[in-house]
Amino acid sequence: MTITRRTLASVGAAALAAPLLSRGLGAADIPATATSGGGAVAADPGHSMDAYPAHWLGKEKIAFLIYPGFTALDMVGPHYMLGSLMGASTYIVGKTQDPVVSDMGLTITPQASFATCPTDLDILFVPGGGAGTLAAMKDGATLNFIRDRGARAKIISSVCTGSLLLAAAGLLKGYNATSHWVARDLLKDFGAIPVNQRVVVDRNRITGAGVTAGLDFGLSLVAQLRDADYAMAMQLLAEYHPEPPYDSGTPERAGTQTTAMIADMFNSFVADVRTLAKSIQ
Amino acid sequence: MTITRRTLASVGAAALAAPLLSRGLGAADIPATATSGGGAVAADPGHSMDAYPAHWLGKEKIAFLIYPGFTALDMVGPHYMLGSLMGASTYIVGKTQDPVVSDMGLTITPQASFATCPTDLDILFVPGGGAGTLAAMKDGATLNFIRDRGARAKIISSVCTGSLLLAAAGLLKGYNATSHWVARDLLKDFGAIPVNQRVVVDRNRITGAGVTAGLDFGLSLVAQLRDADYAMAMQLLAEYHPEPPYDSGTPERAGTQTTAMIADMFNSFVADVRTLAKSIQ
Repeated sequence: MTITRRTLASVGAAALAAPLLSRGLGAADIPATATSGGGAVAADPGHSMDAYPAHWLGKEKIAFLIYPGFTALDMVGPHYMLGSLMGASTYIVGKTQDPVVSDMGLTITPQASFATCPTDLDILFVPGGGAGTLAAMKDGATLNFIRDRGARAKIISSVCTGSLLLAAAGLLKGYNATSHWVARDLLKDFGAIPVNQRVVVDRNRITGAGVTAGLDFGLSLVAQLRDADYAMAMQLLAEYHPEPPYDSGTPERAGTQTTAMIADMFNSFVADVRTLAKSIQ
Repeated sequence: MTITRRTLASVGAAALAAPLLSRGLGAADIPATATSGGGAVAADPGHSMDAYPAHWLGKEKIAFLIYPGFTALDMVGPHYMLGSLMGASTYIVGKTQDPVVSDMGLTITPQASFATCPTDLDILFVPGGGAGTLAAMKDGATLNFIRDRGARAKIISSVCTGSLLLAAAGLLKGYNATSHWVARDLLKDFGAIPVNQRVVVDRNRITGAGVTAGLDFGLSLVAQLRDADYAMAMQLLAEYHPEPPYDSGTPERAGTQTTAMIADMFNSFVADVRTLAKSIQ
């Protein structure tokens, strides 16, 4: 469940009389080239923007890069959170607008291409992956897009190995950052400073750890861009009261055997990234 | 990051000598009509299936229903977890194979249609949404598909308001079940027994609470279909060590004001579902 124009329309005039009840967290129903959070709300005659705290209405342009072999969950978690920022516009961006297939076979169609993505972004977001991320790190057009939009973006961000892509584009030199635990140390090879933390903020670089860290990343960013009340409402909407069935979400908790099993599967990925880092420098 | 055929291929013969290191959790790189977890591994000359515990290799057919206005995160979390079941095949299923737009504007192309989806499924999974879920609950073809596949599926499952769709199809009568907290009580209107729990298992019905509960739902199901070791490895791969920035993920934790604000946005959704329930009975 998300807040759409239709759910917002269900909040009647009576509710608007009570300041708290009048608040909305809108995202439009269905986009043309982008999904608008706030514009739709402002245009809704059933809603007066006066009823919202003024700072709840933004106008951010947020681009979510996708590329062949990206991990969908890395992107969809943050998209859920940031897509509910009232007034913001979100863009799923591919090299072209042809459908992009994720590492697990989900086919997602971009809303914009490198050519049509707004040039001045508030937030550039990059998800991770495995072999697909490595391929993207070798792709000049992808690196150029990240460098170009990153040069003017107010916030440059990633989840999982998306930080390797930012690093390969030269955007993390001298910055504290994190990544999926398998790949975190690789950040050093690109001049970044790896930090073992779920969400790392260093100036305008915000990086999240592996896959599911995108939820914590997204909520943190919602709080930064709006306020704690807004983020808490989004956490409730997402019913984000996690109850993992086990306690094995980090190498420290999972223990050496399970960690070695997973890490071993990425040996060649790690080696290939190291080789690439050398060739870049 | 996920385990793909390529990451599995990186586990060499030496690693296979150590039983633990030899384990893999495969999902194929890119599907034709479905995404295979295990078949690809068995076919990989670099891997002997003898190295895996026999019960780690399954052959489940798992269908993820999508429909206009569904909430992508409801589906993508479980898909991440279940798509890594070695030997399993996952199918993103739409009414047709035309692209389906989520409530937040993500466009996803199904891998199968109601007509081409395998008839005998091991797992039928249904995600939730708001207005789109209500529309699907009124759509005869969608209800027929759920009833037909549900009649033979070994496990019938949902996250968020997906349980309302199962209920509207008559599949939850007399069953304990859960849903998004906004919609949980509505289950009664369809003869189900609402339970305030993040994941509810009653015989072969497994339902998860709102949106992010899909992660806990998915891991629980992985443990049920394989074992705890497998699920713990997946939890580590997903780096699922949640650190929500606030403690507001349930109505009980968020408090009455925030809860009322969100609940109020869904007043007309709730009323419409109640009306629909009456018309069905």
